[in-house]
Amino acid sequence: MQKPLRSLPLSQMTITDGFWSRFQELVRTQVIPYQWKALNDQIEGAAPSYCMHNFRVAAGMETGTFGGHVFQDSDFAKWLEAVAYSLTWHPDPELERTADEAIDIVCAAQQPDGYLNTYYIINGLDKRFTSLMNNHELYCLGHFLEGAIAYYQATGKDKLLKALMRYVDLVQQCIGPQEGQLHGYPGHEVIELALVKLYQITQEERYLRLAKYFIDQRGQEPNYFRQEMQQNQNRWAWEKSYFQFQYYQAGKPVRQQDAAEGHAVRAVYLYSGMADVARETGDPTLVDACKALWDNLTEKRMYVTGGIGSSKYGEAFTFDYDLPNDTIYGETCASIGLVFFAQRMLELDPDGRYGDVMEKALYNGTISGMSLDGRSFFYVNPLEVLPEASLKDEGHSHVKVQRQKWFGCACCPPNLARLIASLGNYLYSVGEKDAKEILYQHLYTGSLLETQLDGKKVAIRTKTRYPWEETITFTLSIPEGTADFAYALRIPGWCREGSFSVTVNGKPLFLTPEKGYITLSGPFSDGDTVVLTLPMPVEMISAHPKVREDAGKVCITRGPVVYCLEQEDNGADLHRIYLTPDTAFTCQWEPQLLDGVVTLQCTALQRQEAQPDGALYRRYTPPTDLPKPLRWIPYYSWANRSPGEMCVWIKMKS
Amino acid sequence: MQKPLRSLPLSQMTITDGFWSRFQELVRTQVIPYQWKALNDQIEGAAPSYCMHNFRVAAGMETGTFGGHVFQDSDFAKWLEAVAYSLTWHPDPELERTADEAIDIVCAAQQPDGYLNTYYIINGLDKRFTSLMNNHELYCLGHFLEGAIAYYQATGKDKLLKALMRYVDLVQQCIGPQEGQLHGYPGHEVIELALVKLYQITQEERYLRLAKYFIDQRGQEPNYFRQEMQQNQNRWAWEKSYFQFQYYQAGKPVRQQDAAEGHAVRAVYLYSGMADVARETGDPTLVDACKALWDNLTEKRMYVTGGIGSSKYGEAFTFDYDLPNDTIYGETCASIGLVFFAQRMLELDPDGRYGDVMEKALYNGTISGMSLDGRSFFYVNPLEVLPEASLKDEGHSHVKVQRQKWFGCACCPPNLARLIASLGNYLYSVGEKDAKEILYQHLYTGSLLETQLDGKKVAIRTKTRYPWEETITFTLSIPEGTADFAYALRIPGWCREGSFSVTVNGKPLFLTPEKGYITLSGPFSDGDTVVLTLPMPVEMISAHPKVREDAGKVCITRGPVVYCLEQEDNGADLHRIYLTPDTAFTCQWEPQLLDGVVTLQCTALQRQEAQPDGALYRRYTPPTDLPKPLRWIPYYSWANRSPGEMCVWIKMKS
Repeated sequence: MQKPLRSLPLSQMTITDGFWSRFQELVRTQVIPYQWKALNDQIEGAAPSYCMHNFRVAAGMETGTFGGHVFQDSDFAKWLEAVAYSLTWHPDPELERTADEAIDIVCAAQQPDGYLNTYYIINGLDKRFTSLMNNHELYCLGHFLEGAIAYYQATGKDKLLKALMRYVDLVQQCIGPQEGQLHGYPGHEVIELALVKLYQITQEERYLRLAKYFIDQRGQEPNYFRQEMQQNQNRWAWEKSYFQFQYYQAGKPVRQQDAAEGHAVRAVYLYSGMADVARETGDPTLVDACKALWDNLTEKRMYVTGGIGSSKYGEAFTFDYDLPNDTIYGETCASIGLVFFAQRMLELDPDGRYGDVMEKALYNGTISGMSLDGRSFFYVNPLEVLPEASLKDEGHSHVKVQRQKWFGCACCPPNLARLIASLGNYLYSVGEKDAKEILYQHLYTGSLLETQLDGKKVAIRTKTRYPWEETITFTLSIPEGTADFAYALRIPGWCREGSFSVTVNGKPLFLTPEKGYITLSGPFSDGDTVVLTLPMPVEMISAHPKVREDAGKVCITRGPVVYCLEQEDNGADLHRIYLTPDTAFTCQWEPQLLDGVVTLQCTALQRQEAQPDGALYRRYTPPTDLPKPLRWIPYYSWANRSPGEMCVWIKMKS
Repeated sequence: MQKPLRSLPLSQMTITDGFWSRFQELVRTQVIPYQWKALNDQIEGAAPSYCMHNFRVAAGMETGTFGGHVFQDSDFAKWLEAVAYSLTWHPDPELERTADEAIDIVCAAQQPDGYLNTYYIINGLDKRFTSLMNNHELYCLGHFLEGAIAYYQATGKDKLLKALMRYVDLVQQCIGPQEGQLHGYPGHEVIELALVKLYQITQEERYLRLAKYFIDQRGQEPNYFRQEMQQNQNRWAWEKSYFQFQYYQAGKPVRQQDAAEGHAVRAVYLYSGMADVARETGDPTLVDACKALWDNLTEKRMYVTGGIGSSKYGEAFTFDYDLPNDTIYGETCASIGLVFFAQRMLELDPDGRYGDVMEKALYNGTISGMSLDGRSFFYVNPLEVLPEASLKDEGHSHVKVQRQKWFGCACCPPNLARLIASLGNYLYSVGEKDAKEILYQHLYTGSLLETQLDGKKVAIRTKTRYPWEETITFTLSIPEGTADFAYALRIPGWCREGSFSVTVNGKPLFLTPEKGYITLSGPFSDGDTVVLTLPMPVEMISAHPKVREDAGKVCITRGPVVYCLEQEDNGADLHRIYLTPDTAFTCQWEPQLLDGVVTLQCTALQRQEAQPDGALYRRYTPPTDLPKPLRWIPYYSWANRSPGEMCVWIKMKS
């Protein structure tokens, strides 16, 4: 196995302009403050979160009962993580003070033995660790760790981190392979990848061992969850369901799992943890399991937007090639988890196909979850919407036509906040090749990297109007004059073969991508300028013929961006629109529209509605199709104007 | 308003051969005996019905508690109704004795004041009539009445009928417009049409008045169901649903309802009762309401098979043109109710469009509910089935790939039994035109009618291999020599304009259908022979372009029969099959297949599955379609061989 790549610290990255800085500012100025109010039940008209209330009650600072979901603590953790990333690139003493004060409250709730979960502290500690399957203790701890680590990295403050390390100590006493320990693992994964992060910053092997235990033990017989239910008389939502323990990816050992099954968010969090443990342990059987799951997930169970989870029932996967566009779940959090998994696969094995999926999810299925003003959110990200169906058919009622203010189960907004705020983490990785360092650039956005390569200070400024324009300029600053490293640039999978071009200081290079990357071999000099051009013709994309819902249809993409039709631009009855193989598209930058997007224009066909006397059924006669001008907008930007129909996959007349 | 038509007694009709006698024999030899065992909990391995047990407990003949659904009594009633019809055309003293004994038990359960509902007799009479909305008392009484009337008509025995008339007396004391009465109506309609039957055989106006009261009062404000819930603290399943009281068609007065809404079976039972009351009262506002509901139901909310009810949720209608083929409910009982409604509309206004729907439902969406051996049944009648989806996607789990033995809620099998056993009722009606009697023949099947027309004995023998063959021969026997009446024959809507031909005693007549019927004006002589030929080319049918699920697709019909493709004949991945506008079909009578069916053959196209390296998404290239021979079978006969895919609507390459 190749030596895995390493990430660069977020502090070395600045998103300087372009597409993503707008999103980051939304997170900083809208989402984080709004969420803090939500955690403190200060949003008028919204159901209370009870999150900080629970911590205060658990700390004895307030009286009352536990409120909200059993996993309510994690809302604070995800908020703190987003705050930490935001502080990294935008110091804000007031926000930091707010976070410090919140951490004080949280730490005050910690029990003498290290335990820290408000649900059980308030409702009775005797029941703790009796429902690892359902009650999210380890899930909350996982998010806690991620938040605490990020906050420590951003501020150097380790109060919460130290507190949580004591909690992890307690978990290690209670859960593990030894006699007298619970041989369990979390019902909702995430702690696995958090423990690997903890291992990475502490280099204490026992954290890695615990993560590995959770992964190795998962789904082994006798099944821990079954035993736990029997011993504690726990109730089980999936007793009569086809899910059984695979809802939790615990129906069989993870190395025997080769299809993405069960709750989609849980699945991709597990797979991310598996990839982390595989990277740190070098276990080839775990790498193989990750690859098998990746292949199934991305080649048989993923929407073209990077959405995953075909069914509302269990917010879960269904079966191969089952990708309904209108009854999809496609949870924002699941696409976020897919980004986590993709990044980890990329660092296990720098192959552009991982970067392609990461980019697809980032530009489409994740950010579609947030309105352009950062104030409302989708859980469910459909690829086809009919407002009447959402209102009048229960099977479509989970598909909302408009984003909602906030949620009782508020997982998606803070999850999106922490992803966007940490975007810098996803742009680069560093590895070694032929005894030199190699810098991989996976994503292109206006940014400044300031790092060390070849033992020297190296800064790379990326200038681009990606994803709208085709040209990306990289300028290298090397104060010491030169540095010898390799520089690998991802040639996206959406780019037509041989169509890209690259120049170094104006001179064209003729390179063939290997596994999705071209490599500039270095050494580099101060002031070197690389220009990469990725032609972005409008593409018609078809799905595998096994995908019933997309059969006979195409979707339209340009660069990494998936497009859609909205009723606002194109009228109702989008299902009556047909493209033809020779449909020609033009692109237009529309700065005033949807905070600035490139729209696509074409003239397609619209099947005429008229039936003689409006008959529901009649003898077939070749239909009349009339020319229909269309305006396409980026999928992520849908549902920001008037509510109406939306559609990604459009019929192809052929 | 034209004077309504009248039905002919079932006793005047014999189904002599052909398509339907096979079904009638199945009902007589399989369904009725099996159902009797089921009612008596004698089916091994099946959940007990408790139906007769409940009657015995209520009669004090047995101890025990109430078992089964709150509407369990109606299972007996529907069984008795089927028995009665069966005795009409196949006397069977042993079966009649069984029925008599059962009636004795049922009558023994009747309370001194006439009340007869085992749920409340066993569980406490103080609660009776406190949940008309949910607890099916009036529904059970309605079915009771239908069964008792049919049994009286078949056997002349009125023990149960008299008992039920006492129960109706009690209902009339308790429910009605007077002060001190409950101003209520049934939560599940059916009693309305049953009361009109009772009025027809007794000519007692008060029964008609009660039916009219239930219809007029329905949905008036203040809403009775709301008041009833508040007074009795009843629970309500639809409190937070978009249904509200329209689940029961009680959200507004029936004359303000112009769309088929709510539970589909309830809806068509109500509409049938409305049409009955409209016929008997001549109320034009009620006729208009029936026509508006008919138009909406059949022109915007009906499947091409005569299936109705687009959603499993509430077994209900959704919205106009929402006709998903794979998540349909399409309950067998709802199509049966549609036959009831169609027949009543036909008798209000002899227009072939009602006959067309009646025929469509009879040959497709009703009988698809029963296996060819009469031993297993569908509740849900999908137009598209993917076995993997039924197993692995909750949204398709109600769609079964194989008919089931019997049901806990056993409404469909006995309902189908009573429909098939009374098929003779649907063939003819008699009206008056130009001071002469006019005999309408709506349906064509091998049969013998023995009736009186023009005051004379007239027998008509219909010989045909309909729906497989195009020719129908009618031979008139008039022992007195001649009879002067008009004879109207339905020219089905599926028949191409001008394509039919008719001869009388070998001489062609050139008639133009009016409202779907041609009229032979008479007088007729003994031995007159009419031959009607209805050419049956294979037709490709398209749906209204607003029907999203059928857009770009066609279905195949021949005569009244809708065809489908099954995996058994055509392999898997039916969604990859394309027809072209010039696809040519041949027909073949296959006596050994599916108890004898005409199959269709054609060569269509199959889109090839290959994608370079199996990619889930790739740049569009015009697909490769290879010739694909297909065998089509009648829709009603699907799922009688090996389980597999089935599809009615097939893509049209255009």
